[in-house]
Amino acid sequence: MQSSTTYNVLAGRDLGRLAALSDGVFAFAMTLLVLDLRVPAVAAIKDEHQLATALLALAPRLVPYVMTFLTLGIFWVGHQTQLTLLDRTDRNLAWLTIAFLFTVTLMPFSTSLLAEFLAFRLALITYWLNILLLGVTLGAMWAYARRSSLTSAEVTYEVSATVVRRIVVAQSLYAFGAALCAFNTYVSIVFIVVVQLNYVLAPRIWPLDRL
Amino acid sequence: MQSSTTYNVLAGRDLGRLAALSDGVFAFAMTLLVLDLRVPAVAAIKDEHQLATALLALAPRLVPYVMTFLTLGIFWVGHQTQLTLLDRTDRNLAWLTIAFLFTVTLMPFSTSLLAEFLAFRLALITYWLNILLLGVTLGAMWAYARRSSLTSAEVTYEVSATVVRRIVVAQSLYAFGAALCAFNTYVSIVFIVVVQLNYVLAPRIWPLDRL
Amino acid sequence: MQSSTTYNVLAGRDLGRLAALSDGVFAFAMTLLVLDLRVPAVAAIKDEHQLATALLALAPRLVPYVMTFLTLGIFWVGHQTQLTLLDRTDRNLAWLTIAFLFTVTLMPFSTSLLAEFLAFRLALITYWLNILLLGVTLGAMWAYARRSSLTSAEVTYEVSATVVRRIVVAQSLYAFGAALCAFNTYVSIVFIVVVQLNYVLAPRIWPLDRL
Amino acid sequence: MQSSTTYNVLAGRDLGRLAALSDGVFAFAMTLLVLDLRVPAVAAIKDEHQLATALLALAPRLVPYVMTFLTLGIFWVGHQTQLTLLDRTDRNLAWLTIAFLFTVTLMPFSTSLLAEFLAFRLALITYWLNILLLGVTLGAMWAYARRSSLTSAEVTYEVSATVVRRIVVAQSLYAFGAALCAFNTYVSIVFIVVVQLNYVLAPRIWPLDRL
Repeated sequence: MQSSTTYNVLAGRDLGRLAALSDGVFAFAMTLLVLDLRVPAVAAIKDEHQLATALLALAPRLVPYVMTFLTLGIFWVGHQTQLTLLDRTDRNLAWLTIAFLFTVTLMPFSTSLLAEFLAFRLALITYWLNILLLGVTLGAMWAYARRSSLTSAEVTYEVSATVVRRIVVAQSLYAFGAALCAFNTYVSIVFIVVVQLNYVLAPRIWPLDRL
Repeated sequence: MQSSTTYNVLAGRDLGRLAALSDGVFAFAMTLLVLDLRVPAVAAIKDEHQLATALLALAPRLVPYVMTFLTLGIFWVGHQTQLTLLDRTDRNLAWLTIAFLFTVTLMPFSTSLLAEFLAFRLALITYWLNILLLGVTLGAMWAYARRSSLTSAEVTYEVSATVVRRIVVAQSLYAFGAALCAFNTYVSIVFIVVVQLNYVLAPRIWPLDRL
Repeated sequence: MQSSTTYNVLAGRDLGRLAALSDGVFAFAMTLLVLDLRVPAVAAIKDEHQLATALLALAPRLVPYVMTFLTLGIFWVGHQTQLTLLDRTDRNLAWLTIAFLFTVTLMPFSTSLLAEFLAFRLALITYWLNILLLGVTLGAMWAYARRSSLTSAEVTYEVSATVVRRIVVAQSLYAFGAALCAFNTYVSIVFIVVVQLNYVLAPRIWPLDRL
Repeated sequence: MQSSTTYNVLAGRDLGRLAALSDGVFAFAMTLLVLDLRVPAVAAIKDEHQLATALLALAPRLVPYVMTFLTLGIFWVGHQTQLTLLDRTDRNLAWLTIAFLFTVTLMPFSTSLLAEFLAFRLALITYWLNILLLGVTLGAMWAYARRSSLTSAEVTYEVSATVVRRIVVAQSLYAFGAALCAFNTYVSIVFIVVVQLNYVLAPRIWPLDRL
C-alpha cells in the first residue's frame, strides 16, 4: 500500500499542464464544430441565386453551432475560474478534469445530432444530458477541491457558495429548458440560448443578473 | 445581485489561459485548411503525366488557402499584440475573445466556400463578412479593454490610436477589395492578397507603410 | 564531431515546450475519438423511435471510446508525473517523448479498429500492442532520464522504483488482459477496463491499491 | 510612417505565444496523419484471416506516416532550439514563423500524396519540396534573428555557424535523396529515412555524427 500511495502522491501535481490540456481540448472541440458546416456540392450550383438558396438552407445548422460555442465558452470560463481559485492540484483532481474533458469531447457529437434532428425530442434530451454531465463533473471538481483543501486562501465560504450556486442555478435552468421540449424542441432551444446569452452578457437587470 | 457580481468578478481573470485557448483555436484552424487539399483519387491516375495534371488542377485551391493563412496570421499577430498591451483581463474580455475565436473557427468554412466557388460573388462576400467579423470583434476587444482600464501603463493615447487606426484602415481596404467584386471576384482576391502581403511584409515604401 | 556535439547540446532543452507539444497531441488525440461516433443518417430516421434504435446501435462504440479515453488519461498523467520529476531535458529525451507521442497518435486508429471489429482477436491484439508501445516508450523515457541524471533531487531510488513498478505492473495486467482473448475478446475488454478504472479511482481496498 | 512603425514595433513581441502557436500547429499536424490510416471496411471482412490481410495491406502507408513524423519531429526540435537561443522576437520573426508553420501544415497533404503514389516520382518530388520549404523558412528565421540581434548572448559566431551548417547539410542530404528517385522512389525513401534516423539517434560513429 505504501508504494501505491507514493505514486499517487507524485502524480498529477502540475496545475499548468492541467490547464494546457484543457485549453487544447476546448480549442479543438470548438474548432471541430465547423466541420459540420458542409460547403454545398459544387455540381448542384449553377448561379449566384442557387448558391444563396443553398447557403440559406445551411442557416439552421448555425443555431446548434452557436449554442454549442456558447456552452463550451461558458464551461471554459467556469473551469478556468475554478483553476484560478486553486493553489495546487493532485491526481484525483486531474482525473476529475479528464472526466470533465471527456464530456467536452462529446459535445461535437451531441451538436451534430441536434443539428440533424432539430425537431426530435431525443436529440434535444441527448444534448441536454451532455450539458448536465458538463455541470456534474465541473461541480464534482469543485466539491473535491474544497474537501481536499486545494483551494487558495481567498476562497472563503461565501466565494465557494457562489461557485456552487452558479452551477446549480444554471443546471436548473437548462433542465427546465430541456423539459420544455414536452411542448416543442424549438421552445427548448430558444430558452436555452436565452439562458446562455444571459450568462455571457451578464446584463444588469433584475432578476437575470442574480442567476 | 451581490452574488452574481461576485462570481463575475472571480471569472475569466487568467490572461495566460486566454492566450492558450486562442493559440489552440488558431493553430487548429490553420492546420484544418489542409483537409481541403484533397489528394487526387488513385484510381484515376495511371502515370506521372496524369498526376501532374491532377496536381495542377489543385493549384487554384491554394490561393484561398494561402489567403486564409495570411488572414489568420494577421489577426493572430493583432490579437497577440493586444494581449501583450494588457495588464489584466476580466470575464467580459474573455467573452469578447471567445466571440473573436468564434469568427476564427468560421474561416475554414468561408475558405472552403470560396475555394469551391471562386467566381461567385456571394462566396467572396461571405468570405469578406468573415474578415469583417474578425475586425469587429478584435476592435470591440480593444475598445472594451481601454474603457475598462485593462491596458498597461505603456499604452498611451497615441498607442491606442495606432491600434484602432490599424483595424479601421485594414477593414476599409478589405471592404474596398470586396466591393471590387462588382467587376470580378478575381480582382477582389488579388487586391485583398496584395493588402495582406503589405501587412505581412510591411515594406518601407510610401504610402503602403502607413496603412 | 565537435560541431555535431555542439548542436545536440543546444537542441531540445526546453521542458515547457516538450510539455506543450505533448498536451497538444493528447488533447487532439482525445478529441479526435469523437469523429468515430457518426450521427445516424437523417434519411433513414422517420420518428423518435427509430432515432432511439439508431442511438442504441451506436452504444457499443462508446466502449472502446471510453476505454481509449481512460488509456490516454492514464498515460497523460504518467507522462506529466515524469516531467514534474525532471529538472531539465535534452535532445534525446525530446526524441523519446516524440516516439511516445507517435504511439499516442496511433491510438485513434487502434480504437477505430477495435470499435469496428469488437469480436476479432486481431483487433484486440493490435489495440494491446499500442498500449504496450505506450508503456515501452514511457519506460524508456524514465530509464534514460535516470541514467542521464535529468531527474530532480527529490527523486530517490525509492521514488524511481515506484515509477518503474507502476509501468511494469500495469503492462503485466494489460498483457494478461490481452491474453484473455484466447477465450473471448469481450472478457479481455472488461478486464482491461477494470484495470484502468482501478488506476483512475485508486480505491483504498486491498490488493488493488497496490498495483 | 511614424504610426506604422509604432504598430510594427508593438506587434509580435511575445516569444511564449510564438512557441505556443507553433506547438499547437505541430501537435495537430502530427496527429492529423493518423486520419490517413483508414480502418478496413467492415463489410468486406468475414474472419481473422481477412482482417490480417487487410491490415498488412495498410502497412506500406505506415512508411510515409513514420517518415513524416520523423520530419516534423526534426523540424520541431530545430525550431525549438532556435527559439531557446533567442532573447526576444519581433513582428518579422513572427511572420517568418507563420511562414514556417504554413509549410508544416502542408506536410499532411504531401504525406497523403506520397502514401497514395509511393512509386510516382512527382509525389516524391512534391514531398521533398515540402521538406525544402521547411528548411528554407527555418533558415530564414535564423538569418533574420542573427541580423536583427534577437539572439541571446550565448550565441557566439560558432554556435550560429553550427545552426546554419545543420540546416545546409541536412537539406543537401534530402536533396541528394530526392535526386535518387531518378533510379527509383523507394531508394529515395530509404535514403531519406536513414538520414532522418541519423538525426534522431545521433549515433557516435564517424562520419554520420558530424552531419
